[in-house]
Amino acid sequence: MINKNIAKVPPKGWNSWDAYGASVTEDEVRKNADFMSKYLKQYGWEYIVVDIQWYEPTANSSTYHNFTPLLMDDYSRLIPDEKRFPSAKDGQGFKPLADYVHSLGLKFGIHIMRGIPRQAAQNATSIMGTNKTARDIALNNICPWNADMYGVNMSIPEGQLYYDSLMELYASWGVDFVKCDDIASSKLYNDKSWRPEIQGLHRAIMHSGRDMVLSLSPGPAQIEDGALLQSNANMWRVTDDFWDDWSLLLDMFDRAEKWAPLSKQGNWPDFDMLPLGHIGIRSVDGPGGDRQSRFTKSEQRMLMSLWCLGQSPLIMGGELTDMDDWTTKLLTNQTLLHMNDYIQEKRQVYRDDNQIIWYAADDKNEYVAVFNISDKEILLNPNDLPDVVVPTKGYSIWDNQDVDMTDYALSSHDVCLIQV
Amino acid sequence: MINKNIAKVPPKGWNSWDAYGASVTEDEVRKNADFMSKYLKQYGWEYIVVDIQWYEPTANSSTYHNFTPLLMDDYSRLIPDEKRFPSAKDGQGFKPLADYVHSLGLKFGIHIMRGIPRQAAQNATSIMGTNKTARDIALNNICPWNADMYGVNMSIPEGQLYYDSLMELYASWGVDFVKCDDIASSKLYNDKSWRPEIQGLHRAIMHSGRDMVLSLSPGPAQIEDGALLQSNANMWRVTDDFWDDWSLLLDMFDRAEKWAPLSKQGNWPDFDMLPLGHIGIRSVDGPGGDRQSRFTKSEQRMLMSLWCLGQSPLIMGGELTDMDDWTTKLLTNQTLLHMNDYIQEKRQVYRDDNQIIWYAADDKNEYVAVFNISDKEILLNPNDLPDVVVPTKGYSIWDNQDVDMTDYALSSHDVCLIQV
Amino acid sequence: MINKNIAKVPPKGWNSWDAYGASVTEDEVRKNADFMSKYLKQYGWEYIVVDIQWYEPTANSSTYHNFTPLLMDDYSRLIPDEKRFPSAKDGQGFKPLADYVHSLGLKFGIHIMRGIPRQAAQNATSIMGTNKTARDIALNNICPWNADMYGVNMSIPEGQLYYDSLMELYASWGVDFVKCDDIASSKLYNDKSWRPEIQGLHRAIMHSGRDMVLSLSPGPAQIEDGALLQSNANMWRVTDDFWDDWSLLLDMFDRAEKWAPLSKQGNWPDFDMLPLGHIGIRSVDGPGGDRQSRFTKSEQRMLMSLWCLGQSPLIMGGELTDMDDWTTKLLTNQTLLHMNDYIQEKRQVYRDDNQIIWYAADDKNEYVAVFNISDKEILLNPNDLPDVVVPTKGYSIWDNQDVDMTDYALSSHDVCLIQV
Amino acid sequence: MINKNIAKVPPKGWNSWDAYGASVTEDEVRKNADFMSKYLKQYGWEYIVVDIQWYEPTANSSTYHNFTPLLMDDYSRLIPDEKRFPSAKDGQGFKPLADYVHSLGLKFGIHIMRGIPRQAAQNATSIMGTNKTARDIALNNICPWNADMYGVNMSIPEGQLYYDSLMELYASWGVDFVKCDDIASSKLYNDKSWRPEIQGLHRAIMHSGRDMVLSLSPGPAQIEDGALLQSNANMWRVTDDFWDDWSLLLDMFDRAEKWAPLSKQGNWPDFDMLPLGHIGIRSVDGPGGDRQSRFTKSEQRMLMSLWCLGQSPLIMGGELTDMDDWTTKLLTNQTLLHMNDYIQEKRQVYRDDNQIIWYAADDKNEYVAVFNISDKEILLNPNDLPDVVVPTKGYSIWDNQDVDMTDYALSSHDVCLIQV
Repeated sequence: MINKNIAKVPPKGWNSWDAYGASVTEDEVRKNADFMSKYLKQYGWEYIVVDIQWYEPTANSSTYHNFTPLLMDDYSRLIPDEKRFPSAKDGQGFKPLADYVHSLGLKFGIHIMRGIPRQAAQNATSIMGTNKTARDIALNNICPWNADMYGVNMSIPEGQLYYDSLMELYASWGVDFVKCDDIASSKLYNDKSWRPEIQGLHRAIMHSGRDMVLSLSPGPAQIEDGALLQSNANMWRVTDDFWDDWSLLLDMFDRAEKWAPLSKQGNWPDFDMLPLGHIGIRSVDGPGGDRQSRFTKSEQRMLMSLWCLGQSPLIMGGELTDMDDWTTKLLTNQTLLHMNDYIQEKRQVYRDDNQIIWYAADDKNEYVAVFNISDKEILLNPNDLPDVVVPTKGYSIWDNQDVDMTDYALSSHDVCLIQV
Repeated sequence: MINKNIAKVPPKGWNSWDAYGASVTEDEVRKNADFMSKYLKQYGWEYIVVDIQWYEPTANSSTYHNFTPLLMDDYSRLIPDEKRFPSAKDGQGFKPLADYVHSLGLKFGIHIMRGIPRQAAQNATSIMGTNKTARDIALNNICPWNADMYGVNMSIPEGQLYYDSLMELYASWGVDFVKCDDIASSKLYNDKSWRPEIQGLHRAIMHSGRDMVLSLSPGPAQIEDGALLQSNANMWRVTDDFWDDWSLLLDMFDRAEKWAPLSKQGNWPDFDMLPLGHIGIRSVDGPGGDRQSRFTKSEQRMLMSLWCLGQSPLIMGGELTDMDDWTTKLLTNQTLLHMNDYIQEKRQVYRDDNQIIWYAADDKNEYVAVFNISDKEILLNPNDLPDVVVPTKGYSIWDNQDVDMTDYALSSHDVCLIQV
Repeated sequence: MINKNIAKVPPKGWNSWDAYGASVTEDEVRKNADFMSKYLKQYGWEYIVVDIQWYEPTANSSTYHNFTPLLMDDYSRLIPDEKRFPSAKDGQGFKPLADYVHSLGLKFGIHIMRGIPRQAAQNATSIMGTNKTARDIALNNICPWNADMYGVNMSIPEGQLYYDSLMELYASWGVDFVKCDDIASSKLYNDKSWRPEIQGLHRAIMHSGRDMVLSLSPGPAQIEDGALLQSNANMWRVTDDFWDDWSLLLDMFDRAEKWAPLSKQGNWPDFDMLPLGHIGIRSVDGPGGDRQSRFTKSEQRMLMSLWCLGQSPLIMGGELTDMDDWTTKLLTNQTLLHMNDYIQEKRQVYRDDNQIIWYAADDKNEYVAVFNISDKEILLNPNDLPDVVVPTKGYSIWDNQDVDMTDYALSSHDVCLIQV
Repeated sequence: MINKNIAKVPPKGWNSWDAYGASVTEDEVRKNADFMSKYLKQYGWEYIVVDIQWYEPTANSSTYHNFTPLLMDDYSRLIPDEKRFPSAKDGQGFKPLADYVHSLGLKFGIHIMRGIPRQAAQNATSIMGTNKTARDIALNNICPWNADMYGVNMSIPEGQLYYDSLMELYASWGVDFVKCDDIASSKLYNDKSWRPEIQGLHRAIMHSGRDMVLSLSPGPAQIEDGALLQSNANMWRVTDDFWDDWSLLLDMFDRAEKWAPLSKQGNWPDFDMLPLGHIGIRSVDGPGGDRQSRFTKSEQRMLMSLWCLGQSPLIMGGELTDMDDWTTKLLTNQTLLHMNDYIQEKRQVYRDDNQIIWYAADDKNEYVAVFNISDKEILLNPNDLPDVVVPTKGYSIWDNQDVDMTDYALSSHDVCLIQV
């Protein structure tokens, strides 16, 4: 059973994918950690996560170079590329970088792919603690969008041994957060072959003895796997990759509603990274291009309100060091962050073609948000709606003043969120 | 939002379907109520529910007589057949019978079908409170297994008026429990046309001002509709009809596991009636025949253990008045019933091809159950299993003595359930 | 087995739906028949078909008035509304109108819905040749988009008797073409409950002794039902309703390709009516509005080329009497019509994002068509394409002159069709 | 377009899979060829086909050794293992074995997997005629049941070059029949990524200049891909692997009915190998074990009747050299084989829970078969069935005498097949 003391509140941090795709460098990671330590740590931000393919020497964007040789140790475990991560030299792996992040009072995370490297199976390389080789434990199943790995056969003990060896290595590096990809969406495969690997990962973390957050991707995870996910992971993606596109934001309301009943301490449905500020520096996914987030400011208010009301993890995708003042304020709004951490109930209470209303409460306050999803300004009055009974007067988080929602004009794609 | 004070614990009662299909008589209902009042009430059993087609004069089993005229009042509302329910004479509806049930210290429930009678649409009969007729609010969607009703158009206010008129009538009768059918399983229709009717039913109950439990059938409800169900209903079926057949019982473990995260006060995933004791008297569904439950005693232990650990409502399907001592004991085991009412966490912790292990806890005790789903006796030792850490010594509810599950031989299709 | 002498070539005619929805009058039908007789008959056009709800007295557009009483004879058979079809007075049904159409040298067709009227089941009306009533043979399955009928139970002999009684009536009227709706698309129901009704219809036509074309709607019929359809019907819809919209036309290429192997004498996959000329007079389906077809002239060339190469039935949807010269020429192009009747092989030979190439041949000529599905002009050269080997020089049907397709500029959404 | 002169009649031959799995040896192939030449050739049997993994040195049954190195030439093309195929020494490939088969008056076939070897992509080996390597043309898609290959990217010219290089090699060896696997069933992948490879294979065969039958596996191919298959392949599997199991035989009637409209000269839906006689020698698939076919004699009559009426290719799966007299007679029944070659129409005319009736005709004779699919003897009378009109008197192929099917007792799981 999942340890509820890990990820007691939704994790908050930074991840390299939205800005750098598969190509982030140690220098870039350190600078973002420095920034977080100075300007965001006091608000609860703490994880610095290196995303996919730190073991792929030719990675230079978010486009994978299929079938390229990967860097691997003697036990079929991928290791960081020293060119991009110089401190990894002499077989030190991510330990020096993790130590640095820890020295700043932060936590360190890495991305991994489900499975064992294909080249390990091809070459029958060793597995720690057994005479069986990678060829013996590899399964003929693959990730459809990345060619690096085969699945691992969990029906033999050596499968678990392999995952144990991974987590033992990561624990020795000082890793605090493991984002495992190609494992949370049950649509990828017709069968449920990925389920035992979720359990194996969780077991391996427990065996390691180190507290490591387990984050599963990609989405959409299926709600009918909720019990399995709650038992084994701290967070799991409820959508496919999220980018700065209105249709994706609108779609998230549906997912947020459905997953709310399965969200609790230690178990956080994950709405994906925040594509805010400066993104797409070397990532070419999503709408693409080196850019400031294409979301309007009002859409960014909606996004932050929904992520916090839904208690999603908050993982910033934009480069921190050149973040503008507006974006910084989004990430440091204490009422929002408090809500994200501590609300005890939350639900969508109304939806029609124009507006969506959420209600939440912590032990002191209630919160009501009205989102205008239409293309026009709306004159609000929640209590005019059939059977909607919510508080309508309170302190508006985005207006910084008391408002009465029964007499409030809300712009298109904007939100009114009150604390009562 | 659902009122958590209705169905604070999983409802417990008796329903006429498993024994009488669509054909139960008032006399039979009264006798079962008498029995419950005398012998079961003190254990928490309280609902007496008349199942489907009390308005169908020719109903005589569980096979429907499609297109038969139904008894209906002037406002397109179905009313009880006086031949089968003599106290309904003079337009009194179920009020006299409900009064009688109440006089025994019990609560009274009825079954309804989603929608408005087909004959009402055909004949354009009146709707209370509007000049529009049944023809105006009927939708061209039907239940696939019963020909009595059309759907109701909830996109016009008159749709809600009709449901309001129903619940007003039922409240006037003194109904405490409404089991609505053809509404919980999203597989029946390609679209989600049934969703607004769930919301309309809930609204109508709130408008009525009377506390009535809302129970939705048939199953399987979809887990992705969990948020909707939690907001609008007190219990909902997670399976299609359940009968005394091992494969159905085995299948329930899977559903129980998946729905556990969505089970909470006021919201109880429903594993369906208990086909125990004397059933099939005039029902010809399921394995069929007037019979004692075909489940073996050990399977009945499994069933009761799972229903109580999963906090399913407990709705007895067998005739009460000729219930044997064995069955009576199943329904009056105070430890089981306490568990059903008060456990605060519950989950499946292990499953392989031979055994399934559940763990639960209330504020004082822990509970562990090992179910043998194999065809052979198993020598238990939960802690031998990979990463299973559960208490193994405690008071065995079925053995009536302390046991040590690390040295326990469990028969095929049997359960060892300990209180620690 | 289907009689190959019925519908030896793809049927050609006129149908009232695209212009008049469910509301066409006898006068309108007669005028269109007069026109066809004078101006189109010599080109092979011969069927005049009255579409849906000639038995519904209040029908006035393509929007159905659900649950309205229908006109029915003593044997649960629907009969024409005398207000709209005055010659149907005195129980003559469509006989006088059919006689008139025959007098013009044309053939007469009607539309029916699968099943038996709901009001017949509701009222337990008589079935010819049996004491069982409509209630006894009705099945609790319905058309999702029209509330008039229930399915018929073909597992009892009285189901066939009912269909026999229908076809006997239609034969007595002189009907030559029966378009049955709610029966060709297997997606409507999870089961295959509609299959026996297809067989029953075909049997009933054979029992009637009259040659009547059997046309099944709506689509998309499923290719895996091809063998069933070939054995029982002369034509069946391969799409949902087709209207004057480019995306629907583009989509038809895919269907035409897939169904080509199942097209043969007596068995014609049906691409649906031709929404050309003046349509939408009282029909409000599709893009809507009383209008000239919204297809551009070049798109109309594409449409006619594809329908004729694919040997679809050609059923004109526009009002004939005010047809402009352009549209008239489309319907009277002898090369196209010859191709539609007599080609012996046909197939798509190439497709990329810009162009689609079809090849066909009769016993004297070959035909090659290049369709430009892109948004730009294309400079053709079929033989430049990988492995495309087709004749490229011939008489261009639309240019009325010889052309060389290796040096031909083809406009966006246009076709070059040569006869070699 | 497919060349109709290849596979003018359904191919007949022998294949090594049912007896030897992936492990057949040259000696075994030669002996079966010898036998065919002596005893079967005069009946039309001509193909000798070496099934999967002739390039896998450790293959010893039908269980694959995933990730084992394969034998490959300098151009990423798999070549026969010399240990199992000694004549392949000195880079001669299958030429000597093909020459031997040709010398017997027979034709030679091989099995291949869709795609390019994984080890080729892993090691970036060469492709004939281009500087691009296997890594450049490999796609990240795999066969779910065999780990040998990646897909080939047909959207770049080098993909076609690779297939061209394969067929050029096979043509140089003298191959007459290519069975390509992991390519006919559209359910393997969500997308249609395998479609271009079917076209590429066909193109490569045409480019080779040699007449080679193209056979596609596994099944079930989808009927909606029928047009694609007819344009590119001579035969394609309509089922998953077929073994000596009644439920699989019963299931084939459904497939045979559905595919009959798409069967024609050069295009033969393939019901899979005949698991008759001595099978499972080193194959462990299916019901398993070194055995005589588990089909009863009457079921074998049904099988041969259905395969021949449906014009399936006839590819014997059992070892020929120790074939018993009964099995030999099944393979040499001249009426059956004539029917298989020359019938011009064929269809299922009736099916209920007990019997299935097929009708076929060639230019001289009609054929009627009644199959008893029930568990009891049936007293036949086809013309008693609703609307079945077939000849009932004729020469019974299995009784070797004239019979009258209106007075014929047919055993369970047996067939009466008459020639009229």
